[in-house]
Amino acid sequence: MPWINATYRLRSTPDQVEARAQALAVEQSLETPPSAVSEAWILEEVLARVEAIWETGPGDYRVVLRINAENSGFEAAGLLNALFGNCSLQEDVELLEVDFPPELVAAFSGPRLGLPGLRRLTGVYGRPLTCTALKPQGLSPTQLAGLAYTFALGGIDIVKDDHNLGQQRYAPFAERVPLIQRAIQRANAETGRNTLYAPMLLGGPKGLAQALWIAREEGIQVVMVAPMILGLPTFYELVQELGMAVLAHPAFAGARIAPPLLPGRFFRLLGADACIFPHHGGRFAYSEDTCAQIARNLTQPWGALRPTLPTPAGGMRVERTEEIVGFYGPDCMLLIGGDLLAAGDRLLERTQAFVRKVARSSVE
Amino acid sequence: MPWINATYRLRSTPDQVEARAQALAVEQSLETPPSAVSEAWILEEVLARVEAIWETGPGDYRVVLRINAENSGFEAAGLLNALFGNCSLQEDVELLEVDFPPELVAAFSGPRLGLPGLRRLTGVYGRPLTCTALKPQGLSPTQLAGLAYTFALGGIDIVKDDHNLGQQRYAPFAERVPLIQRAIQRANAETGRNTLYAPMLLGGPKGLAQALWIAREEGIQVVMVAPMILGLPTFYELVQELGMAVLAHPAFAGARIAPPLLPGRFFRLLGADACIFPHHGGRFAYSEDTCAQIARNLTQPWGALRPTLPTPAGGMRVERTEEIVGFYGPDCMLLIGGDLLAAGDRLLERTQAFVRKVARSSVE
Repeated sequence: MPWINATYRLRSTPDQVEARAQALAVEQSLETPPSAVSEAWILEEVLARVEAIWETGPGDYRVVLRINAENSGFEAAGLLNALFGNCSLQEDVELLEVDFPPELVAAFSGPRLGLPGLRRLTGVYGRPLTCTALKPQGLSPTQLAGLAYTFALGGIDIVKDDHNLGQQRYAPFAERVPLIQRAIQRANAETGRNTLYAPMLLGGPKGLAQALWIAREEGIQVVMVAPMILGLPTFYELVQELGMAVLAHPAFAGARIAPPLLPGRFFRLLGADACIFPHHGGRFAYSEDTCAQIARNLTQPWGALRPTLPTPAGGMRVERTEEIVGFYGPDCMLLIGGDLLAAGDRLLERTQAFVRKVARSSVE
Repeated sequence: MPWINATYRLRSTPDQVEARAQALAVEQSLETPPSAVSEAWILEEVLARVEAIWETGPGDYRVVLRINAENSGFEAAGLLNALFGNCSLQEDVELLEVDFPPELVAAFSGPRLGLPGLRRLTGVYGRPLTCTALKPQGLSPTQLAGLAYTFALGGIDIVKDDHNLGQQRYAPFAERVPLIQRAIQRANAETGRNTLYAPMLLGGPKGLAQALWIAREEGIQVVMVAPMILGLPTFYELVQELGMAVLAHPAFAGARIAPPLLPGRFFRLLGADACIFPHHGGRFAYSEDTCAQIARNLTQPWGALRPTLPTPAGGMRVERTEEIVGFYGPDCMLLIGGDLLAAGDRLLERTQAFVRKVARSSVE
């Protein structure tokens, strides 16, 4: 049985830290009260375990969880979920380090060329490589190509797009990439060197595929991508099929976006029909005000966009139905999970009680 | 000209906040010193502007930046980059609110069904909808289907997968979804109600396409996705083509992952050949120790994975070449952008000086 040891930073107090760490283990595995689970093997193997807790400073703790690698499904999206899905929403937690078991590492291919492949590609050995960026955005394709030509003449190993260069009308991908690549090839012909151009790939899967088609046509050998903007699962799939070297950019990698904005605005703008978020007073520390703002952003008039159905959740109990409906009104969806499952043999009755409470809430 | 007004929370001091806000405006637009830019229109229109600064508490500020919507390219990935690309790496900044101009909102379709469409789909009017989750992971497809049957009998409107249900061998998508969907249809036939099942879609674009094929075959009408795990651009593209209602889950939406782990481990595991990260002493507050850890994680032996080429960057200057090479050794790539561009007409000479310094660094 391969286990992942994941180390989290936790802010807590001496009297609460053990319970807090145990709650973290439950949140990142069963996500339901262990008392509601009757299968012994699930409690043994699927439930994450608190392996260690130590204090590193006043109120500052390290907690090591032992998580079954099977919980990740051995793929990128499942791995993120298993390590830092729900608990990423808790402000007192940060994921610090992960000890990946060999079986899990072996499930991923990692860099296709890596450091040795980049040395082969550039022909640079025994010294660091050099890299520079084409910027600022706003320059025309011809101006960017002029810069690239100078950099290549100057002997830079890799000339990359600024990570902000996307599909702006100033210099869309299809227009700038051929011009820049040809300018660099011209410089290479003059110098006898092998400067490489790394254009920025930015977009959804279709946009990426179109950009790649252009890049291949032009003989591009290195691309730059921002894995956190693409999403790690999309990044991983891209790498599998790319046949080019990949330069990863950290844009968006530390993204702390206020909850009223991230689910409230972005998820709606991009098309969520309903949106789940933690209601206050549950397992997550969102305030009443934050919840009200999220709901408002999801539903208030916004251009021609349809409203998104607010779906408060996160440790809600059937007994709180009236209160929650009082807070959000009828235009919401109540999501209650663990509190129904905790009813065990009386699951049907508890479910019916929940349904009746919601139905009644609209009549009163 | 459509402008985005973006509000950031900034931790600073009274004497530094104006310069800090101005640096934020540069970082999120030109990403190069304005003095290195000769085009007047770029300084007028592409450079973001500080619109307002106010203090909300000791050391706690709000900064409003006015950002040209054209910088986003009017698409999801470019929008993230324009609003919170590089500055997401700065611990003192949080993106709080965005005032989207109508032209930008109109470029996105938003929810395809939204709140009214979900009411039509479920037939529920005048009261909140009810929702519950199938969990914990570890249950077999048959057990999950049994739970779903009970919930549907009990009258829940939408029964969703736990967001942790992915491709685990306990209950892979292809096995659990048909069983659960049929159990719910059986209950619907008995009750005359219309409970809907929302399976969790988790994976890269290919995995998503396979899962969708199964979901369509089974007549699924609602799916759940975690936009931040998929990546917002992939989420948006999925929504365009889905033809089902989308329930968004907030997993990974607050992800604060320590830098040595995120670029150092995850980007390598998933295939970056080279990885850019801020070197200390530049525009980002990474410590020497953090940088050393990132480089170590990128290059030290790790299963069968190739090493990734460390690429320190983020406001480096040519004069620091020896120091940086001294820190990382020859197995790295030096990325210097703005400091070359600042040379203006002497760009070629400055580039050559950089290249010579790196070449010499290996001889000494």
